[in-house]
Amino acid sequence: MPEIRYNMITREWVVIATERARRPDEFRKKIKERTEIPSFMPDCPFCPGNEDKTPPELLRLPSEGPWQVRITSNKFAALERDGRLSRTTSGIRRTVTGVGIHDVIIETPDHSKPTALLTDHEVGMVIEAYRRRYLSVLEDGRVEQVTIFKNHGEAAGTSLQHSHSQLIGTPIIPTEVRDRMETALRHYDAMGECIFCRTLEEEMAGGSRVVLETERFVAFVPFAALSPFHLWIFPKRHEASFGSVTDSDVADLARMLRLILLKLYRGLSNPDFNYTIRTAPKDSAQVRYYHWYLSVIPRVTRLAGFELGSGMFINISVPEESAQFLRDLPVE
Amino acid sequence: MPEIRYNMITREWVVIATERARRPDEFRKKIKERTEIPSFMPDCPFCPGNEDKTPPELLRLPSEGPWQVRITSNKFAALERDGRLSRTTSGIRRTVTGVGIHDVIIETPDHSKPTALLTDHEVGMVIEAYRRRYLSVLEDGRVEQVTIFKNHGEAAGTSLQHSHSQLIGTPIIPTEVRDRMETALRHYDAMGECIFCRTLEEEMAGGSRVVLETERFVAFVPFAALSPFHLWIFPKRHEASFGSVTDSDVADLARMLRLILLKLYRGLSNPDFNYTIRTAPKDSAQVRYYHWYLSVIPRVTRLAGFELGSGMFINISVPEESAQFLRDLPVE
Repeated sequence: MPEIRYNMITREWVVIATERARRPDEFRKKIKERTEIPSFMPDCPFCPGNEDKTPPELLRLPSEGPWQVRITSNKFAALERDGRLSRTTSGIRRTVTGVGIHDVIIETPDHSKPTALLTDHEVGMVIEAYRRRYLSVLEDGRVEQVTIFKNHGEAAGTSLQHSHSQLIGTPIIPTEVRDRMETALRHYDAMGECIFCRTLEEEMAGGSRVVLETERFVAFVPFAALSPFHLWIFPKRHEASFGSVTDSDVADLARMLRLILLKLYRGLSNPDFNYTIRTAPKDSAQVRYYHWYLSVIPRVTRLAGFELGSGMFINISVPEESAQFLRDLPVE
Repeated sequence: MPEIRYNMITREWVVIATERARRPDEFRKKIKERTEIPSFMPDCPFCPGNEDKTPPELLRLPSEGPWQVRITSNKFAALERDGRLSRTTSGIRRTVTGVGIHDVIIETPDHSKPTALLTDHEVGMVIEAYRRRYLSVLEDGRVEQVTIFKNHGEAAGTSLQHSHSQLIGTPIIPTEVRDRMETALRHYDAMGECIFCRTLEEEMAGGSRVVLETERFVAFVPFAALSPFHLWIFPKRHEASFGSVTDSDVADLARMLRLILLKLYRGLSNPDFNYTIRTAPKDSAQVRYYHWYLSVIPRVTRLAGFELGSGMFINISVPEESAQFLRDLPVE
C-alpha cells in the first residue's frame, strides 16, 4: 500500500508510491559522461587567466597567492546591484524594483573538478566564502533574505561545466520562507521546542533515514522526501541563521558536504543536482524556533503536472531505501 | 531595471529579469521533431485495438460506436484504488494510507495527434470526459480533492507519445490548495469580492497580458508569470468548482484550450508543457471566494536551485511580450 507522508516542517504532502517504486540503483544516470574534461578551458570565464572575463571580483580565497575560490558579480544578474528600492501598487498588482545582489562563487580553479572531487580543505574554502559573503551582503540595507544555491548539470538548470554556485540577496522575504517560519513558530509556541531540533532527534533515534553523521552535522533523507535521494543536512547545534556558523562548523560542514556529494557522484554516476542553504531572514537571525539547514535535491526525476497543479509530490522511491543505499556506499 | 512582481492569488514573488530577458521566439523548441509519427502504433496501449493492454475502462465517449476518448485506471497508479483510509501518527511523523483514484484519459484514438491538432468537437469530448469523471470521483467518500492534469513531452514528465491526461483523487487536501483558499478568503472578507473575478476584470480592462477571449473564458499571461508563456484560463462566470461547468462551458473551454495549445504549438514549435485544472476541494465547491481555472505551463526553462531554495522564481521573459507574441499568432 502506498503511503501519503506529511512533512511537518514544510507542510508538504508526498505520495510515496511504494507499488511503483524503483530500486535506488535504477536512478543511476544513464547518459555517458564525456570521459575527458580538461582541467583548463581557454574560453571558460571561470578558468584561471580569464579573470578579466568576469565582472569585478568581490572576494578571493586564499587572500594571498593563487586563488582557490573567487566570488564575482553574476554577469547575467537577475537583480540590479545598484538602485533604489521602491514599491508600486496598481489595482491588485504589487511590484518592487528588482534591486539586490546576485553573485557567482567559482569553487575551484580546476575546470574538470566537480565539488564532489575536491578535498575537504577546498570545499572548506567554498563554505568559508559563502559565510563571508553572506554576512557582507546582509549589511546591504535593501537585502532581507540571502539564498545560496548550486545548480549542477543541465537538469538542475546550468549549462556551465566549471564548478560554481550562486548567492542571491533579495529585497523581499519569499512567501514560502515566511510560511515556514510561521509553521515553526506555531510549533514552538505549542510544544516549546524547535521543530528542526525535534526532527533531528527523532531521525537520529530511529536511524533508518540517516545517511551520515559527523561531529556537528547529520545528513538524512526526510521522512516525506519530495523526490529520490532528497537530502537534508542539519547542524546539530541550534542556530536560525547560516551567518552564525563558527570556524569549526565550516570545516565540519565542508567534510559532510563533500562526502554526501561524493556518495551521490559514485552511487548515481554524477547526477545533476541542486543544493541550497535554507536560512532565516535577516530580521529573524536569532529566533529560537527556526533552524538553518542545507537541502540537496538530485534531479533524477521531473516535476510534472500533478506537482505543479496540486503542490503535492509523488516520490517513486522509498526514503528508507534511498538512505540505506547512500549510507552503505563507501567513500573513504 | 528588473521588476519583482507579486501574485496576489498565489502569494508568489517572481523576478522579471528584464535585463536578461529573451525575445519570445527565442524559446522556440530547438530539438527537431521526428517528422513522421504514425497514427497507429501496434505496441501503444492507448491505440485502438489494444484496449486489452490497459486496466478496465471507466468511461468511454461517445457511448456508441468507435471511441474517441477513453478513461481507464492508471496501470502505474500512485494511489491504491481499493483500501481503507487511515491515519498514523508517530512522533512528529504523520502518514495517511495511500488510497485514492488515479486515472488516465486517452484523448484520441489517433496516435499522431497532439491535443493542439484535434478539432473543437474532439477536445470537447476530452473536457466532457474530465467533467463526468470529476463528478463521479468526488462521490468516493475518501476523496477530498481532484486534480486533473496533462504532461506533454519529456520535459513535462512523460515519455508516452499518445495524447493523454490524468486525474488523481487524493484523500487529503494539499497544503498549497488550503493556503490559496485562505488567501482568497481573506481577500473576500476584506474587500467583498472574489480575487479571481477582480483579477479578470483588471486583466480585461488593461488588455496587455490577454492572449485570447472567447464567449465564456479569458486566457492571459499572469502579471507575475512564473515562467515564459505561463498562462491562466479563467472562466468569466464565478464558480469555485470545475464540477459546476455547464454544457456551454465545456464547448467554449474546448475551443479556448485548442486555440491556446495551437498557438503554443505553432509559436514555440510543439513545446513540452503541462496544464492543470485548479479547482476548489470537495468541501468548498460552493464558496464565493474561490474560482476554478486552468493553468498552462510550457516547460521551456527549468526550475533551478534558487526556485527550489526560496520558493521565489526568476522569469527570463516579459509577461506582456509573451502575451503579445501569442495574441498576434494567427490560428484560425
